[in-house]
Amino acid sequence: MDQKDVKNKDPLVLFMPSGRRGRFKKGTHLLEAARQLGVYVESVCGGRGICGRCQIEIQEGNFAKHGIVSANSHISEFGAKEIRYAEKRDLKAGRRLSCSAMIEGDLVVDVPQDVQVNAQIVRKAADTRLIARNPAIQMCYVEVEEPDMHKPLGDLDRLKQALEHDWGFTDIIVDQHILPRVQKILRAGNWTVTAAIHRDMVTARPSLIALYPGLKNEAYGIACDIGSTTIALHLSSLLSGLTIASAGTSNPQIRFGEDLMSRVSYVMMNPDGCEAMTKAVRNALNDLISEVCTESGVDPLDILDTVFVGNPIMHHLFLGIDPTELGGAPFALAVSGAVHSWASDLHLALNPGTRVYMLPCIAGHVGADAAAATLSEGPHRQDEMMLLVDIGTNAEIVLGNQQRVVAASSPTGPAFEGAEISCGQRAAPGAIERVRIDPLTLEPRFRIIGTEPWSDEAGFADLSAATGVTGVCGSGIIEVIAEMYLAGIITEDGVIDGAMAARTNRIVRQGRTYSYVLREGENPLTITQTDVRAIQLAKAALYAGIKLLMDKLQIDHVDRIGLAGAFGSFIDPKYAMVLGLVPDCELEKVKAVGNAAGTGARMALLNRDYRREIEQTVTAIEKIETALEPKFQEHFVYAMALPNKVDQFPNLNKVVTLPARSAPTDSSGGAGPVRRRREGRRPRG
Amino acid sequence: MDQKDVKNKDPLVLFMPSGRRGRFKKGTHLLEAARQLGVYVESVCGGRGICGRCQIEIQEGNFAKHGIVSANSHISEFGAKEIRYAEKRDLKAGRRLSCSAMIEGDLVVDVPQDVQVNAQIVRKAADTRLIARNPAIQMCYVEVEEPDMHKPLGDLDRLKQALEHDWGFTDIIVDQHILPRVQKILRAGNWTVTAAIHRDMVTARPSLIALYPGLKNEAYGIACDIGSTTIALHLSSLLSGLTIASAGTSNPQIRFGEDLMSRVSYVMMNPDGCEAMTKAVRNALNDLISEVCTESGVDPLDILDTVFVGNPIMHHLFLGIDPTELGGAPFALAVSGAVHSWASDLHLALNPGTRVYMLPCIAGHVGADAAAATLSEGPHRQDEMMLLVDIGTNAEIVLGNQQRVVAASSPTGPAFEGAEISCGQRAAPGAIERVRIDPLTLEPRFRIIGTEPWSDEAGFADLSAATGVTGVCGSGIIEVIAEMYLAGIITEDGVIDGAMAARTNRIVRQGRTYSYVLREGENPLTITQTDVRAIQLAKAALYAGIKLLMDKLQIDHVDRIGLAGAFGSFIDPKYAMVLGLVPDCELEKVKAVGNAAGTGARMALLNRDYRREIEQTVTAIEKIETALEPKFQEHFVYAMALPNKVDQFPNLNKVVTLPARSAPTDSSGGAGPVRRRREGRRPRG
Repeated sequence: MDQKDVKNKDPLVLFMPSGRRGRFKKGTHLLEAARQLGVYVESVCGGRGICGRCQIEIQEGNFAKHGIVSANSHISEFGAKEIRYAEKRDLKAGRRLSCSAMIEGDLVVDVPQDVQVNAQIVRKAADTRLIARNPAIQMCYVEVEEPDMHKPLGDLDRLKQALEHDWGFTDIIVDQHILPRVQKILRAGNWTVTAAIHRDMVTARPSLIALYPGLKNEAYGIACDIGSTTIALHLSSLLSGLTIASAGTSNPQIRFGEDLMSRVSYVMMNPDGCEAMTKAVRNALNDLISEVCTESGVDPLDILDTVFVGNPIMHHLFLGIDPTELGGAPFALAVSGAVHSWASDLHLALNPGTRVYMLPCIAGHVGADAAAATLSEGPHRQDEMMLLVDIGTNAEIVLGNQQRVVAASSPTGPAFEGAEISCGQRAAPGAIERVRIDPLTLEPRFRIIGTEPWSDEAGFADLSAATGVTGVCGSGIIEVIAEMYLAGIITEDGVIDGAMAARTNRIVRQGRTYSYVLREGENPLTITQTDVRAIQLAKAALYAGIKLLMDKLQIDHVDRIGLAGAFGSFIDPKYAMVLGLVPDCELEKVKAVGNAAGTGARMALLNRDYRREIEQTVTAIEKIETALEPKFQEHFVYAMALPNKVDQFPNLNKVVTLPARSAPTDSSGGAGPVRRRREGRRPRG
Repeated sequence: MDQKDVKNKDPLVLFMPSGRRGRFKKGTHLLEAARQLGVYVESVCGGRGICGRCQIEIQEGNFAKHGIVSANSHISEFGAKEIRYAEKRDLKAGRRLSCSAMIEGDLVVDVPQDVQVNAQIVRKAADTRLIARNPAIQMCYVEVEEPDMHKPLGDLDRLKQALEHDWGFTDIIVDQHILPRVQKILRAGNWTVTAAIHRDMVTARPSLIALYPGLKNEAYGIACDIGSTTIALHLSSLLSGLTIASAGTSNPQIRFGEDLMSRVSYVMMNPDGCEAMTKAVRNALNDLISEVCTESGVDPLDILDTVFVGNPIMHHLFLGIDPTELGGAPFALAVSGAVHSWASDLHLALNPGTRVYMLPCIAGHVGADAAAATLSEGPHRQDEMMLLVDIGTNAEIVLGNQQRVVAASSPTGPAFEGAEISCGQRAAPGAIERVRIDPLTLEPRFRIIGTEPWSDEAGFADLSAATGVTGVCGSGIIEVIAEMYLAGIITEDGVIDGAMAARTNRIVRQGRTYSYVLREGENPLTITQTDVRAIQLAKAALYAGIKLLMDKLQIDHVDRIGLAGAFGSFIDPKYAMVLGLVPDCELEKVKAVGNAAGTGARMALLNRDYRREIEQTVTAIEKIETALEPKFQEHFVYAMALPNKVDQFPNLNKVVTLPARSAPTDSSGGAGPVRRRREGRRPRG
């Protein structure tokens, strides 16, 4: 009979969700089939039926388009390994161990993404995104030969032989800290151990980084976004991919300087400033690690891999690198590529073998956090042209699709964070976050953080009493100025129109300019001409940066916008567009993407393929330095107007009625000089 | 014209001493020619003519057998680089810089092994063996592009680019400690730096382990033999191969136990015993490092590579490994393969990037010191059958040639070190080291350490007054017993013959046995029957081990014997053979090989090819565990006799007249029971 015919009669097996398929001889174990197809199915015990990690489910039915009729009769009966495992532990109905179950006919096999073998670990609700796993850490259970005087190979050397024999690892490098412990661990496990093997780069040799007696059926990792304001840290199981616990804290470096530039200044002024800030952030990380471990009952020694992201200055300070060079042109990063290190070298209280991976930085002001957000939102994986913006003291801007990606930062300054606004404040209970102005009466109504009703609704006074109305946070500032513009209080050039004072006593004169009283009473909140000007400057810088990138790609329209970070998560896309922070776009395609940097860090933690993906992507990203682009000034000047002087807004016009536009003029006329923001450029926060 | 013809008309260049040759186009730089042929010519500056490391000499003459007429006219005139270098620094007459000198005709090129560019460093007289270099550390001078806002690659990333461009290193791993310092170093060197690259394993990626501003034209390494009694450490230039300084000290672990087994016992009895001994040896190493650095003016931060050897227990204690398992069967090593580590992990006060390499151990009682001695003496490289013996509390025995090598250890006990001998002492001034006994009068004469004349020569009394005659050291014990045997005082069974008392009053009765008075007077030195028995037991164990290995190789004769270590260096081969410590062999082929372990460590330090060689050799060595070999007991019993009961001694008979041999009997008869030495086995010292 023809060899090919024989092969074609073998059962067809389709693995989902990957869609990989192949024909296998009857009697082939599904774990073996998965491995041959490159389908990632976890197994710690190497097919001995004791770890339970290799669970799969059989989909029954007629999968006509695949030419498969799949049925539970197409798989072998429960084998001895499965019976023993199901007796000792919980094997959910419908689940099989792929190291035991054998192919008997055509099959559609589902590889569940949530195999949990430790009942006490509960999946966090916040963990919405399932990430395909291929972690840098592999837990490998082996049985090691006992010492033999005839073959006096060392204990460690026989362990390495077993790892080569059972798992195919040749030329393993062994961490020094293993050496003094290997003999006791092997004997404690009665010559069975679980080795934690770290493999990251393709070209690097696998490393033995931790060793446990007997079967160690769990290993954890940490993904962390070190923001200049907030540090957010997630503890994940490397074997199930689930997030076990999360914690966040203020960055204690704030006591050295509120924003990034003041922290760089602190380092320049104080000989031990860098060391102090490095120590502060590492201590905070150790506190967070302690917190998530206590919450989840996880031993910090079982955390074997970590991924950190942050803007360039946070990145450098965490690594103990003086950030002074980032404080002035040419804004030289000490290191831009991905960093591989040891947690112990960075004084993190974890296992001595725990590794650290930091995503690459894109440029001097576009950090590993922007790289992580890019990894998470994936403009480089899309057909659609995507704009990804993370707004801080600097805005990090990434624009592109799978053809080409460009990136830049724009010096927006701290206005969006409320820092240069007379009534501005941080987002906190009592802060105004939503504003509407009646275009006829010019009367405002608003909502504050922590109180459900609007200010003109029943119960507001009672419910807001606890916090009071303390100021206006970033999203509130965007809304009040956008509403003032839509109501005609502000002209397209950003001038609070004194003529409107005739219609309402909320417009008041202050010297040569006018203000709008958002809240009257004992502690009034007023939007001044200076406040409007500060927002104009910030949004013009942001928009000019975006426009510059659009020029580079020769496009005048983006398909999709992701607003990242805390500020991006709370602003209303419509008002962002009215003020011209972002270009015109279909409103339902403008999305807050939350802590995209944190998600990107988790992806890199759980799947080393994502590390290679973002490293290659960052290398390919074209970096635009706005300070060096003559067109930036031109865009900046036109972008001072609301929304701006030159673009069309077809999508925005569908949802709001923009005031009539005057003929283009020099937008710097009218309301005082446009301050150039090139000096005193601030790295983003 | 035929391509081949063109090629054959190119000049022929022969490099010595490697003998590699090839044809090169006229105008090819000799450095380039050497690289193409794989001839190791150092160059730190990468051919810029500033480091002076690539010096060569042209041999003039008619090298008929190579078909070459070599002449200085066959090489280009002094180039600009050479003129500049010779002006600034000393370029010896006849030397050329191979990065400047170009091939103009057939040449025989000598690559000198002693290129020194630092005049202040003087070669030590003790450094007799020149070792071909191919160190694991390569010093690479590069010019790095300055930061550019258009291409915001990090400083470190541009350094890596330069290392790839100029030196061909791709995918360099960077030590964490470099990151915080890279920016300052690059700027201090005005964008020129010298990178220390560590490459060891073929499969491992190169690592950037240290970085210096500008040209750093020197790097050092340490080779160290950690003996249980003595630690010997050598500081070498990795760029010239010369030994710069050496130092030695007692192993401070002696205060925890004189010999190895008592140190293992100390660990077993004291919970912190391992830690205390690890700390003791590391402190001693730091003191020695400090000593050689002070002596030579070398900065410890410039020591970038280190090689350590030692017996298995010293090896383990240095690495912080509890040696308890080595104290009893199955004598399991924690690790037998080569160990790669960091000096900082082992608390050595060197550069944070300094690496540690430890040679593999051969077996539970045959350590990295024996591997190093093997590397140094090279039985595996020879046609001749070589026996290599290092005698301590255990004897490490290696036997073989390039076909096959076997190894074992024998439990000789401490008798050879004087520990079980009534008048025994360590080798020190005042100790008897040489003995002759007149076969007619049975009168002895001797020589002591520190005094030139023999005891019966003029001036002995005066000159020895300072030290006195304090005891008999190892080599003296061998000689006195061998001379007693040759004089007929001792029978071939090792019995001090009471009948001889009639001929001399130096034979005295002590209970049921007799003694020989080596020195009369107030502080007499006497060789007792028990002393003879102790030496018999020790030498029988040693010889039985050797015989077992000879059995394995099915040989009854060895071509060459190397006696390693302190004891081996001082015993007279003839007397060793009379006592039957070693088998019969041509006397001129029995050599003390000194600190062969230290030489092997230096070889591994200066040339990583030697690391691969010894790793492969150790893997191939057949390890014989004497305790498991039934024949060992048989050999042991026959070897109790002097020289032994079964062999012929054709070579020994040429130089001494051995007493007539009796018919074989049970050697345990006659002089008390032969104690079995299997119990209380001691690892060698």
